[in-house]
Amino acid sequence: MTGLPRPGRPHPVTGAWMPGHPVGARQFFTLDRPFALEGGATLRDLTLAYETWGTLAPDGSNAVLLCHAWTGDSHAAGAPDQGDAQPGWWEGGVGPGMAIDTDRWFVVCVNVLGGCQGSTGPASPHPDDGKPYGSRFPVITIRDRVRAQSRLADHLGVRRWHAVIGGSRGGMQVLEWAITFPDRVGAIAPIATCTQASAQQIAWGAIGRRAIRMDPRWRGGDYYDAPEGDGPWEGLATARMVAQVTFRSDNVFTDRFGRELADGATLHDSLDLWQRFEVERYLDYHGDKLVRRFDTNSYLIIGKAMDLHDVGRGRSGLGAAMARVAAPALVMGINSDILYPTYQQRQIHELLLAGGTKSDYLEIDSPHGHDAFLINLEQVGPPLTAFLDQLPVGR
Amino acid sequence: MTGLPRPGRPHPVTGAWMPGHPVGARQFFTLDRPFALEGGATLRDLTLAYETWGTLAPDGSNAVLLCHAWTGDSHAAGAPDQGDAQPGWWEGGVGPGMAIDTDRWFVVCVNVLGGCQGSTGPASPHPDDGKPYGSRFPVITIRDRVRAQSRLADHLGVRRWHAVIGGSRGGMQVLEWAITFPDRVGAIAPIATCTQASAQQIAWGAIGRRAIRMDPRWRGGDYYDAPEGDGPWEGLATARMVAQVTFRSDNVFTDRFGRELADGATLHDSLDLWQRFEVERYLDYHGDKLVRRFDTNSYLIIGKAMDLHDVGRGRSGLGAAMARVAAPALVMGINSDILYPTYQQRQIHELLLAGGTKSDYLEIDSPHGHDAFLINLEQVGPPLTAFLDQLPVGR
Repeated sequence: MTGLPRPGRPHPVTGAWMPGHPVGARQFFTLDRPFALEGGATLRDLTLAYETWGTLAPDGSNAVLLCHAWTGDSHAAGAPDQGDAQPGWWEGGVGPGMAIDTDRWFVVCVNVLGGCQGSTGPASPHPDDGKPYGSRFPVITIRDRVRAQSRLADHLGVRRWHAVIGGSRGGMQVLEWAITFPDRVGAIAPIATCTQASAQQIAWGAIGRRAIRMDPRWRGGDYYDAPEGDGPWEGLATARMVAQVTFRSDNVFTDRFGRELADGATLHDSLDLWQRFEVERYLDYHGDKLVRRFDTNSYLIIGKAMDLHDVGRGRSGLGAAMARVAAPALVMGINSDILYPTYQQRQIHELLLAGGTKSDYLEIDSPHGHDAFLINLEQVGPPLTAFLDQLPVGR
Repeated sequence: MTGLPRPGRPHPVTGAWMPGHPVGARQFFTLDRPFALEGGATLRDLTLAYETWGTLAPDGSNAVLLCHAWTGDSHAAGAPDQGDAQPGWWEGGVGPGMAIDTDRWFVVCVNVLGGCQGSTGPASPHPDDGKPYGSRFPVITIRDRVRAQSRLADHLGVRRWHAVIGGSRGGMQVLEWAITFPDRVGAIAPIATCTQASAQQIAWGAIGRRAIRMDPRWRGGDYYDAPEGDGPWEGLATARMVAQVTFRSDNVFTDRFGRELADGATLHDSLDLWQRFEVERYLDYHGDKLVRRFDTNSYLIIGKAMDLHDVGRGRSGLGAAMARVAAPALVMGINSDILYPTYQQRQIHELLLAGGTKSDYLEIDSPHGHDAFLINLEQVGPPLTAFLDQLPVGR
């Protein structure tokens, strides 16, 4: 097993950021009281790790919130450093003079509650005993995460976001922000996302869950004191492989990998069940890469929230929920996305229009599938720039 | 774990048919000499289990070969019985007066080499010690399976098939039959299949392999003497779940399952990671159902062969390979198939035409995805009937 935690982040069995690890560009906000969750449980400690770029205007009017995807974190932009071994997940799109111009906007990105890069999550110490929550960590919904972030917004002095932007899981949060706090959101850009997880999306999530549960090293979620190298990496890598295929496209896989064998093998010299095709090597690589920077329980907790995502829940359905949105929207889909097909984004757009909200729908033309919102910045960025510019600031 | 072998097939850890189990409609053919495999290994014992319907004409001219899919077997038609707990995989399509009319045609279906329903496979006794092959079983290609079936054809007195028909993995075998033995195949109907597995198809296969390998009860493939209830069912069920999603379609999942919770649950009364949506219950059901009638190692061995499928291998490429086909073809695709997209069947059709072979392409209009070739018999059957009828018999 090659899935060792990354350099500078020494932990034997999780890629989570832990107290004592280099802080990097993270800042921390801790809520001073218990936080009740939609599912009924209460978190007695709630810390959010976040990163900011630019300067908040004195009237607080220029704040833009970025919401990250499943395995993202607060590090939306910036080179790798001691605190973050990877470049930002929207590197090249967020910065001075870039699509989301940090000379102009005060940009905030928050590691989600239940995540593993500084916000309270399954790898965090439980207030009762200081040991990681593990299996004791509750299921947290997208709505819980939005309410938690609203406390951070209060703390930062942001009464109202100029815009809330995000793709995939982040886009779910964008919609929940606009529905839960219509008067605190000036505009929204939900990208490659949906109003509610479909049965097929849930199915993919369920397979990942079952793969992780099968890994004996997952230990029912209480693996944090396992010996070095004995973490639930096979399970997480397998779950990630499922996701990775759905994040990309048939055509790009064919163009990139075809039917090449990996490791210079030829069919006849080493034919057995485990002779790898190049696409297998690629999937193994991405699985192993994720386990170095992520926590298996956080993967489960965040994935479950995506499956639970349904803006209509308890709100008399999708139409009524979406009619609560007051913010003008730029909705984007990707024509090759097999995981969040464009009918889902067109539905968002149409429900917004039906609810009397201004909305534009834009389709990214890319072969890259769902991940195009991270890859094709040249298509995603300029419309976002124009959208942010045309909005009245500080209404 | 609910994955117990099915009634009447008592084995503690595999759903494989074993010597001593009820034979049902199976017949057996055993080759009287060793059989060399494309990968270099040799099988010293080669038995094929097969089932037949109808009567072979005295001149052997009316024989039709059906090739089954990944988890199919020789039981293409017929009610469940002691030997086969399930109805035939093409039940309703094969029989007297049916699409493939057994009053007219002598129909043969062979459990593939490496399978688990009577043909030599990983659960079969190794000639050295009488214990199951397990991890000793070699990788077998589609071409190996076709050559093995050609020996059965000799035994049956079938010099030349009137037609060879099959979908999915079976369609791969249809193409290899027509390319390897052009003078023994009168016509072909490859359905929802491909000339070579794509990178994405290989990726799905690789995930299933990795899931099974992760199951500690798989024991590296040598699990046959494990205690009752301690077989590699979690791994097989997880692999099957991956396949099951790719076999169906987003739309049908939405229509059928939506976002319903299983077991009458409500979100708030039982929210945890393992609260199931209805689609999860469905996938669990199909996973558990497969393990009762299948062998985990056979799943691996047959799946690997599908990933290795490439009619162009060693034949100067796809075009040259397909130009060897002499048999007229009816090629079928399914418009909602996400696993074997219709561009693959159109490619078969176009390569056949380019090679000077008569070919028709027909697209099944179905929401059911890849499995439509098993579900929409009302669309698949009549064109097959007409195709079989219009061919000259006994050329």
